[in-house]
Order: sequence, then C-alpha cells, then structure tokens
Amino acid sequence: MEVKAFKIATSGPADVSGLQRLIADGAINPSEVICIIAKTEGNGGTNDFTRELAMRAFEDLFVERLKLTRQEVVDRIIFSVSGGCEGVVSPHCVVFTRGGAALNERHDKKRLAIGIGFTREFSPEEIGRLPQIEETAKVIRSIIESLKLDSEKDVHLIQMKGAIPSFSYVEAEAWEKKGKPLRSDMVYSRGASALASAIALKEVDSSQLSDDKVCRDFDLFSSVASCSAKPGLKRTEIMVMGNSPYWTGDLEINHGVLKDMIDVSTVRQVLKGLGITFEDQLSPEQVSRIVGVFAKSEADPRGTIRGRRHTMLTDDDFSDTRYSRCVLGAVLSSIIGDTAVYISTRAEHHGPLGGGTLAIIAKM
Amino acid sequence: MEVKAFKIATSGPADVSGLQRLIADGAINPSEVICIIAKTEGNGGTNDFTRELAMRAFEDLFVERLKLTRQEVVDRIIFSVSGGCEGVVSPHCVVFTRGGAALNERHDKKRLAIGIGFTREFSPEEIGRLPQIEETAKVIRSIIESLKLDSEKDVHLIQMKGAIPSFSYVEAEAWEKKGKPLRSDMVYSRGASALASAIALKEVDSSQLSDDKVCRDFDLFSSVASCSAKPGLKRTEIMVMGNSPYWTGDLEINHGVLKDMIDVSTVRQVLKGLGITFEDQLSPEQVSRIVGVFAKSEADPRGTIRGRRHTMLTDDDFSDTRYSRCVLGAVLSSIIGDTAVYISTRAEHHGPLGGGTLAIIAKM
Amino acid sequence: MEVKAFKIATSGPADVSGLQRLIADGAINPSEVICIIAKTEGNGGTNDFTRELAMRAFEDLFVERLKLTRQEVVDRIIFSVSGGCEGVVSPHCVVFTRGGAALNERHDKKRLAIGIGFTREFSPEEIGRLPQIEETAKVIRSIIESLKLDSEKDVHLIQMKGAIPSFSYVEAEAWEKKGKPLRSDMVYSRGASALASAIALKEVDSSQLSDDKVCRDFDLFSSVASCSAKPGLKRTEIMVMGNSPYWTGDLEINHGVLKDMIDVSTVRQVLKGLGITFEDQLSPEQVSRIVGVFAKSEADPRGTIRGRRHTMLTDDDFSDTRYSRCVLGAVLSSIIGDTAVYISTRAEHHGPLGGGTLAIIAKM
Amino acid sequence: MEVKAFKIATSGPADVSGLQRLIADGAINPSEVICIIAKTEGNGGTNDFTRELAMRAFEDLFVERLKLTRQEVVDRIIFSVSGGCEGVVSPHCVVFTRGGAALNERHDKKRLAIGIGFTREFSPEEIGRLPQIEETAKVIRSIIESLKLDSEKDVHLIQMKGAIPSFSYVEAEAWEKKGKPLRSDMVYSRGASALASAIALKEVDSSQLSDDKVCRDFDLFSSVASCSAKPGLKRTEIMVMGNSPYWTGDLEINHGVLKDMIDVSTVRQVLKGLGITFEDQLSPEQVSRIVGVFAKSEADPRGTIRGRRHTMLTDDDFSDTRYSRCVLGAVLSSIIGDTAVYISTRAEHHGPLGGGTLAIIAKM
Repeated sequence: MEVKAFKIATSGPADVSGLQRLIADGAINPSEVICIIAKTEGNGGTNDFTRELAMRAFEDLFVERLKLTRQEVVDRIIFSVSGGCEGVVSPHCVVFTRGGAALNERHDKKRLAIGIGFTREFSPEEIGRLPQIEETAKVIRSIIESLKLDSEKDVHLIQMKGAIPSFSYVEAEAWEKKGKPLRSDMVYSRGASALASAIALKEVDSSQLSDDKVCRDFDLFSSVASCSAKPGLKRTEIMVMGNSPYWTGDLEINHGVLKDMIDVSTVRQVLKGLGITFEDQLSPEQVSRIVGVFAKSEADPRGTIRGRRHTMLTDDDFSDTRYSRCVLGAVLSSIIGDTAVYISTRAEHHGPLGGGTLAIIAKM
Repeated sequence: MEVKAFKIATSGPADVSGLQRLIADGAINPSEVICIIAKTEGNGGTNDFTRELAMRAFEDLFVERLKLTRQEVVDRIIFSVSGGCEGVVSPHCVVFTRGGAALNERHDKKRLAIGIGFTREFSPEEIGRLPQIEETAKVIRSIIESLKLDSEKDVHLIQMKGAIPSFSYVEAEAWEKKGKPLRSDMVYSRGASALASAIALKEVDSSQLSDDKVCRDFDLFSSVASCSAKPGLKRTEIMVMGNSPYWTGDLEINHGVLKDMIDVSTVRQVLKGLGITFEDQLSPEQVSRIVGVFAKSEADPRGTIRGRRHTMLTDDDFSDTRYSRCVLGAVLSSIIGDTAVYISTRAEHHGPLGGGTLAIIAKM
Repeated sequence: MEVKAFKIATSGPADVSGLQRLIADGAINPSEVICIIAKTEGNGGTNDFTRELAMRAFEDLFVERLKLTRQEVVDRIIFSVSGGCEGVVSPHCVVFTRGGAALNERHDKKRLAIGIGFTREFSPEEIGRLPQIEETAKVIRSIIESLKLDSEKDVHLIQMKGAIPSFSYVEAEAWEKKGKPLRSDMVYSRGASALASAIALKEVDSSQLSDDKVCRDFDLFSSVASCSAKPGLKRTEIMVMGNSPYWTGDLEINHGVLKDMIDVSTVRQVLKGLGITFEDQLSPEQVSRIVGVFAKSEADPRGTIRGRRHTMLTDDDFSDTRYSRCVLGAVLSSIIGDTAVYISTRAEHHGPLGGGTLAIIAKM
Repeated sequence: MEVKAFKIATSGPADVSGLQRLIADGAINPSEVICIIAKTEGNGGTNDFTRELAMRAFEDLFVERLKLTRQEVVDRIIFSVSGGCEGVVSPHCVVFTRGGAALNERHDKKRLAIGIGFTREFSPEEIGRLPQIEETAKVIRSIIESLKLDSEKDVHLIQMKGAIPSFSYVEAEAWEKKGKPLRSDMVYSRGASALASAIALKEVDSSQLSDDKVCRDFDLFSSVASCSAKPGLKRTEIMVMGNSPYWTGDLEINHGVLKDMIDVSTVRQVLKGLGITFEDQLSPEQVSRIVGVFAKSEADPRGTIRGRRHTMLTDDDFSDTRYSRCVLGAVLSSIIGDTAVYISTRAEHHGPLGGGTLAIIAKM
C-alpha cells in the first residue's frame, strides 16, 4: 500500500475548496482518503466552534462525493481538527490517502504507513483512569500490528482525538461524593491517551501505572503521542503512523522528543533523520519536501524555562495553551521557513515535563 | 568613558531587589546608572499598569540612593519599561552604567558608547507629523555627535519612548473638524520616532517626508530604531547606542534588519558580527556573553508571512501586538537559548513592512 | 396576514433541534418562516465563526425541508445571527413566521407586521458613504409601504445585516491614495445602515447628510434601527417590524431610545407601552408574554457614564463591544427576569451617543 | 465613636489626589483613617498589578502624612483593593474614618460601627481547611465584641482579604503525595474566609464543618461576608461593619443575600431597609445618600440562571470572574444610577450557589 499526503492552505475553518480542487484534478481519490489533520483558527478550548464548523464542511464534502451517510463518513475517515493558529501558525490541513494493493513482499526502503481505529465508547468515570488507558492501548497495538512494521521503534506518531463523555453537574457531584471525582475533561483525557501510547509501545510498563499516576507522575511519558480531546466525543479516534518495509510511496516520517519549547537541537535532529541538513533555514527545495509537521507544546508547569521564569501560567488574560502553541509554532516555523505547522497543546505525558513530541513527514 | 551592562531577572514589575543587591555588592555605582531597559509582564497596551509600577519602584530606589527628587531622577536616567512578556519571554531588566573620564585619545577597538537626551514637550497636534519628527531627529543628531563615533554606520540602536500628550474628546473633535485629526496615539508616535531616526542617520532624506507619509509609506524606515510610546508622556526620551573608538570597556553592539518575524538568518548574522557562531544553539559560554537583545516585532499588516496567511490581525480575542511579541520572543529565545530578550511592538517604519529591527550587545 | 414568533433556547451555534421539534409538532410551518434572529456564543468580531456555523445549520434544515437550493433559502428567509452572549445572555433564537391571506380590511387593533428586503450588491467604496445610505433607505421605504402601516410612527424595529464587501490590501492602498480611504468595515457599514433608517423614517433629512457626517455627527440617529454588519456580505439584508391595523395575530411591538446603557426608565416605559407594569421584576406570567427583546449597546465613546469614568475603551484585553453587550444584557435580563435577550453592538447612529435602541415584542 | 465615609473617584490605580485634597481641605483627618476599600481597573487575577500599584500609592501617602513606616501603616489601616472594573463599574475608593471618644451610653438610633483585626500568619497547608476557618472566626468574634452591637443580626458586612501563603512547586508535590494537596489559592482562601464568617455569626455550626465541606458543600454559607484573597499575603485582614447603638454619625448599613446575579428584588429590599424607595431609579438626592455598595458576584457553576444556559464558564477567552463582576456591576449600577459600585468575585460560600452577598451604606 502507499500513502500520499497533501498540505492544503485554508481561508477559513469551512474552506474545503483546495481539497475539492485536488479531487477535481484527479490528484486525490476521495475514496482513498483515510485521514485529515487540520489546524483551524479557533482558541482550542471549550468554546472553539471552528472544529465543529470544519468537521461539518469536511463531512458534507465526503457525504456528497462518496454517497455515504454522515456516520459512515466518520467511521471511515479520521478528521483530526485542532483549533488554535496563534502567532504565525497558518490555517491548513494535511490530507492523507491510502491506496494500492496490500503488499506481501518486503522492500529495501521503509515508507510511511498509516492505520486507524476507534476505541469502544467510554463512560465519564473511565476517563483519565486505567479503563481508558487499557482500552486505548489495546486498539493502538492492533493498529500497529496491521502495519507490518519491523519494530515498535518504527512508530513515529500516534495521533488521537480523545473521548470526553458529557455529564451533568449532578452526576459530577455524585462521583465527587463517592471520593472518585470525574476526570472527564481535556486534561485527563489527553493524559490518559498519551499514557496508552506509552504502554502500547512499551515505553512504560503497565505495572508502573495506576489511576494516581495519571496527570501526576510526569516521568512516565510517550515519545510519539499527539493527543487532543473533544468535549462530547464518546470514543477515542486513533491514527498510527510509522515507516514500514511493506509500504511504498515517497514519504517517510521521523520523530523526536522536545526537551522544552525552544529545543532547536531536537528539531534539527528530526530533520537530519529525514536527510534535511542546513545552516540557517531550509532552502526552498527543502521546504517543499516537508508535507507535515506535528508537535505538542506545553507551558512548563514549573513556571521556568532554562532557569528563567515565564509568565504563561500567571497571565489570566490569555490561556497558557494558546501561548505555548504560539511559541512552538514560531520556533518550528522559523527553523523550517514555512508557517503551515500543526501544534497541539497541552502535552501531559507527551515527552518530559515542559517538553513535547514532534513528528515530521517528508518526501524522500 | 566606559559602559557596563547588567542583565537582571525580576520576580515582578516592582522587583528591584536584584539591582539593590548589585549596588550593595559594589558592582553598580548608582550615580553612574544612565539607563534601564526593562520588560515587565503587562499587556503593553493602554491599561498596562506594570510600567507605572516598575517606574515607581525604580524611581523610589534612586530617589533614596542619590538623594534626588523624583523629577531629578527622571531627568538623569532613562527608564525604558516595556510591558508584554508573552510566551517564553522572561521579565528582566538591563541596567547600563556610564563611568570613567572623557577620553581624548582613540583606541584600536570600538566599544559600546551610550548617550541620552530629551526632546522639548510636544503638543498633541504635533505628534505623528513633521514637528515631532524634526525635533526628535535634531536631538538624536546632537546625542550622536557627543559619542565621537567614526560614522553614522556605528550607530546600532536608537531606543526611544515617544511622547503621547493627552487630549480631551472635545479637543479631538475640534481637530477632526479642522481636517487635521489628532494622531497623538501609540501608532503615530512610534512611527514618527522611527522616521526621526531614519532622518538623523540619513537613511531617509527630509525631502522624501511629509505628514502624509507617516504610518503610510512603509518603504521609508529606520534600521536601528526601537521606539515605544507612552500615553501621557509629554516629551520623547532618547537613548543612542553605538560603537566608538573613544570609549572603553568590554561591550560591543551590532544590529540587523529583520525581513519578517521568522528571519533566523538575520539573527545569526548579527551574532556572527559579534563573533558568535554556532550550529544549533549557543553554547552556555556564548549565552553568558549576551547582555542585551532588543528587537521590534510586527504582525505583518498584509496578513501573510512567506506567502501564508496569518491570523494575528483577525483574532479579536487577543491583540496582534501581544502575538507578535510572543512570536519574535520565541524565535530569538530559541536561537540564543536564553529567554531574557526584550521585544517591543509594533514596528511602524522600523525595518520593512512586516519586519523589524534587532540589536544585540555582547561581551567581547 | 399574521406573524407568529417562537423563542427557542439553543445548546450551541449549530443546534436546530428546538426548531425541528416545533416543525415536527406542527407548531411551525417551515414554508412560512420569514426570519430568524439568533444570538450565538461567539465574540461578535472578525473571527466569530459561530455565525457561519449557525447559518450553515439553519440553511441545511430549510434546504432539506423546503427542497430548495441554499441560495433560494437565503433569498427567502432573513437569518440575522449575531455572535456574543456575554455574561448572563443566553444563546437562543427567535423564529418569525408570516402566514394567512393578505388583508384588505382594517382592524381595531394594530398587530405585528413584518416585511423583508435586500439592497443591490455594494462595491467596497460605497460602504459608509451616501450610496450605501440612499440605496438602503430606498429599500426600507418600499418594505414599509408593503406593510400598510398607519404612519411611520408604527415602525418599531429595522433589523439589518449590513454589507461589507471584501477588498485587498492593494485596493485599500489605492483608495487611500485617492484621498478616499475605504470604509468597508463593521463600524461604517453599521453606521450607514442606521442613518438609512433615520432617512427612511424622516428622523433625519437627506439634506443634513454627507459622507463626512457618517460615524462622526452622532446627533443624527435612528430610534428603531438595529444593525449589524458581516465581513464578506455583498448586499444588506433588511427586516422591518411595525404594528399594522391590517395584520392579525396576538403580537405587538414597541420601542424606546436608551439614553445610556443603564437607562432602566426607558426599558420600563417600553414594557408599559405593551401593558406590562410591575414593581421589582416581571411576574412569571409577564415573562412568558415576552417573545423578543432586541437592543443595541454601546460603550460610551466619551469614556464616561452619568459623569463617572468607565474603562471599556481602555481595556486592551477585552473588547468594548463584548463589555457593552454584557452590560446591557445584564440590565435587560435583570428587569425582565429572563436572560434570553438579543443585544447587538456597537450602536453608531442608533440612539444618542452612548445610548442605543430597544424593541420588545410581546403577546397581548 | 463615629464613622465617616468618603466615596472618591480615581483616574488610575495610583491616583490618590482625591484623598489628598480631602485631607488638605480638612474633611479627612489622616490619623483617623481606619480602612480604604478600592476598586481598580485590573483583571482581578494572578497578574493584576493594579492592586500592588494602588497599595504602594496609598501606603506612600500615609507613610508621609503619619510619619510611620510602611509596616506600621498596614498594621493600622486595612487597604482592601480589588481589581476588576468590568463594564460600567467605575474605579473608585471608599475611605472610612473612625473618630470621637468611646461611648458608654446607648443611643436611640443604631449607627455604622467598624472594627478591624488580623489573623496570625498561616502556613500554606492550613489554607482552605479548618485551621484557617477557626483562627479567622476567632478574630471576627473578637472584633464584633468590641463593637458593642445589640446582636449578631446587626453585623452587615465582614470584608476580608484572605491569606494565600506562597509555596514552591516542590512543596506542592510533597503535599500532593501526602494525599493532602495544598489549597493555598484564591478559591479556597476565599471560601474558608466566608465559612469563618458563617461560623462566627452562627449561620453555620462548627459541627457541620470539615475540610471536605470547604468549596464543596455550598448549602453552608455566610450572608454578610465579602472575601477576596491575595497571593503572597500571610495573614488575613478583617474588617467588620454593623450598626451599633453606642456609635454616632449619620451612616447606616444594611445587607441582603442575592439569590442570583439578576436578583433585583433583593437589591431593592436592601435599599428599602435604608429608607430608600423608588419606582424606576433613585433620584439624584437618593443617589447622593449612597456612600458604599459592596457585593460578591458569581457565575453560577451549574451553568444556568433562572433555567437558561449561560456561557460564562465555557468561554475560554474571558474569565467567568470578569463576566460576573461585569454583570452584577451593571445590574447594581442600573438600579442605583451610579456606577461607583464595588463588586468582588467569586462568591464561594457567600450566599447560595450562584448568588452572593450585598451590603449598602447610606447617609440617613
């Protein structure tokens, strides 16, 4: 099988004209689309309706093109829409297609392989606790298996949109009284998804985990997770990307673990691993090889970066989530020379405390 | 004469404890302090009271130490306090002292020289128009002359806090009716200050200028200005920094013109001019040589950066001024490896449209 | 003919379930829907995508129900979606239907009459100037005529969504150079729409108007306008409401001119005109009679209210538009005892400077 | 003894010119000043430096006038500075003086009596738990006793600035691991202060309380508390106001419990208790009788007001604390006809869930 990826600029959350053009031109076969990762210009928070608007536009397009119901579309294609294009980050989406016949023979070169899956539906009290983690890890493992990778080391990105089942104030109070307050929020859902990646890839051993460790023991983390979470979503949507010798095409993925939000060295190493070396910034030819940059950002909760105080957590006028996306987006854009980068925040259990994960896909 | 510079982290806008310690230790002679440039954690806007708070704390300290009145202190020391430590930018100040005897003989090496001055008081209708520009340019030229530089090329930073005389709604209406609406705001005051720098350094010829060009013809710009503006301030405060063969010490300054907010190449060139070359990020030894980083940032008013749309001007929940400081602060911090950088915004007539100016002071 | 109105709470911008239920129940005949006025939880600014999301949901519903194209739907029904449910203001919509045969005979009681219309498409340079005003006034007059009112005094609300044709940075520069800078923004479009109402109802005489008066001479104003403006919209959408002796039903509308944002007396007078008098707050029965409350709010540009300073215009962290909606929404909600009120801001030429307009529809 | 109160408009957080004028005029004897309650135009959050700026200005004034050290000033006068003048709320302060000889004889009329006190210093782990509550209640009781009130029913306002001792990330982690996470934040400090009032006035019985009830069981509340909390403050500052037959002057205080943020009826009842009745709004003469309006606001955590959804808790761009101050400030200003009202938020254990407390002082 072969993965193709298309980076498309958007003029607004509901702008699917670029995708429509590529379909009309024959560049994209809509029935081969497996996943769309999009950055929209919202605030990335509870009241970010750009995600819903973008979803609606994408779904409408595929409902019409593929003659499917809305439910069939979302069961077939993963739409990972993340709000928040702070600073220089430019609204865009990356459309992934998967085509060709299943391969039985091994190739010399490993190429980008993508698999998707869904967990069962969760109930609110499972979120942020072991039930969410175990179910998610199980699904991740089965996706990985399907990709025919040489080893877990060849997994470079596990993109998830985590479940946050809704609940009422009364239900929340009831769980509070039971001494097991609900964790069905963005923070815990993201954290548990990331820990599930770590478990699935054996970066963390199940025996190390307990409910108490979630969003608390940040020495436990995934190196490849990129998890968001969506209020109202009942099941977690999962996409795994790795390099497989059984897949073809011209794309390859690499990843690194950011030590902090200004960790230029790791960014350069990830690019180097894809054969991209440079002095100041990428050349235009090198820029054109980059088809996707996916990172998780975090305002260091300890309040300092490289020993100096930051104010992202004490500014009550602007969310630290927006600040950290702005920061990492600026750093990545400045190195790469292209502002169409995907930054998602926060990064609980994604890399070390105050750090994050980074995956880059390039044409070889 | 000799300039010394001290970079001091602050725990809040009114924190002068670091400065007090250096005075107590004998490292700083308070009577030699000529200028303090500080970044405080406000919003940099109309309701940023961190500047007033910091000013009050600095003034109180010098009133006590130098046995002067408050007015005598501000007539003697330039306090350039700029609010806005967005993202990773860390609140700090750089204290400059000027000491030693006036030099008559020339040295081999040019070293950092600093001069300060003040314009006369402006009336509201002069701001953003030729009267402000001409008076400011005149004062700049006289400061430059006093520094005994080899040429105007040796001027690397002209830091100004521009006047914004107050006026009433009624006065504004009256000027509006005369067809000459008041420009006594941050935008015009900054723009006119920058144009004054360009005139003083002959980057722009007086004959090219008219009131209509201010904040309109952005092909006219300064390469070394760094101007803020303060509501209620009646006169513009000016500090000029250059390298002079008649000054001693171990500091040197260099500058560059940023083409856009992610212009890594120019940053690297400015550092190279100070003898600092590196692959990924500065070494700890190199970081410790940097005593001041001063830049002007701008959300490109054309709405794009390197051909891609940005959303800094269409986000009504957060000011483009805060975004652009966050972006350039992140870019500079990531290259230098230190988040104590001074970013001021916006950048009307500071470098090309969408760009800005950058000056770095290092120990040689 | 007869107007019915339905106040429907929404759980999000795209929530049309309440409307669907009323259609399913037979309470609303979708082919009789003439207008929907909705408050959604956005910021009411440039990047408020809740309006687009709500529009899409409403349009989808009518496309399906009425078997029309999207264009046919928007040519038939006015959707006036306004973002910004600050403070206690609760997201909701009011759906208006118009049914029954045209009436030739006069009744004793005047009842709510509604007419809609559209201007021609505008070019950017017409906005905020006489061409927009004259065209808009012409359409308003023709709608009023169609309603068979006794006099212009019986017009109580002219709701408009004003055109803001798009333009490029280059076009803007070109007009700037011609000395006629483009006014194609929210401020001017709203202001011109309101002046058009004033002209149409003879509150202002055409001879008093010139381009220079728009958004400048605030002694000229409408008492019944409620205008928003939408970036990208090419024509202005207009809805006129009045009480006509040729219309039937049980609804009546009344209006008042708010002198400032805390003008409780005018609110009480408008209610009194609808037969609703009370001591502290409305009784539950009285609350249930209110089907629509439509107001325009404004942070007084002179910076004071009843002689005291306000900070809505000097707070750079939050828009004065959001503050003023929050204020007037709280005041109206507190009097009426229901938070489903529609507040739109700003109020250029809507009532006196710092004031606004208010219309209330009640069941008689 | 006799209390006088002076409502003074301010032009900025550091503006003490109005107070200086009243001292110069002889209206205020600075040695009799016992308390200043001020509203400044900050965000009321962690990074609200307007409080520090105002404090510094007030302290400087009294240091100079009373020839005291800064510490002696804050040990003698309670400065209750609260940031957040959202919407129409106008920055101002109310200065209270206490003068005259102690009275031994009872009068016919009860007049405003004020007493102040301080708790011991707290350690971080005591905050939000019983030790804070018990110590605070003890100090309140002793202040009340000193006022010679007829009964606890005559206490109408207990204004507190609660301690929030600082702690490090490491200390927080340590307490977390002990299973007793630190509560040294604004929420818990305010909540515990309010419960202390309830205990002191026997609205809640000590036996009903435990650490688990704090900021959880909102059926327990005070009717007269108005508590803020200040990061870094080590002890809680307390001021009690009531009406005593042993005090003289022309001031009286009354209070009410707001059921929700639009509870106009309670506001009217509190005014009525002070002899102020009216139809729409107060007359100018009545307005001039009001010298202080102190209220606590709260965005109902259940997400609804009078059965309708509000969006204050789901808007990630603006704090619910700012929204609720804006709402209640608008409601109170609209009834009273004066925007110099003091609103503090949030209102944990201040009145019922979603409600708050209100105290008004008037000249009789």
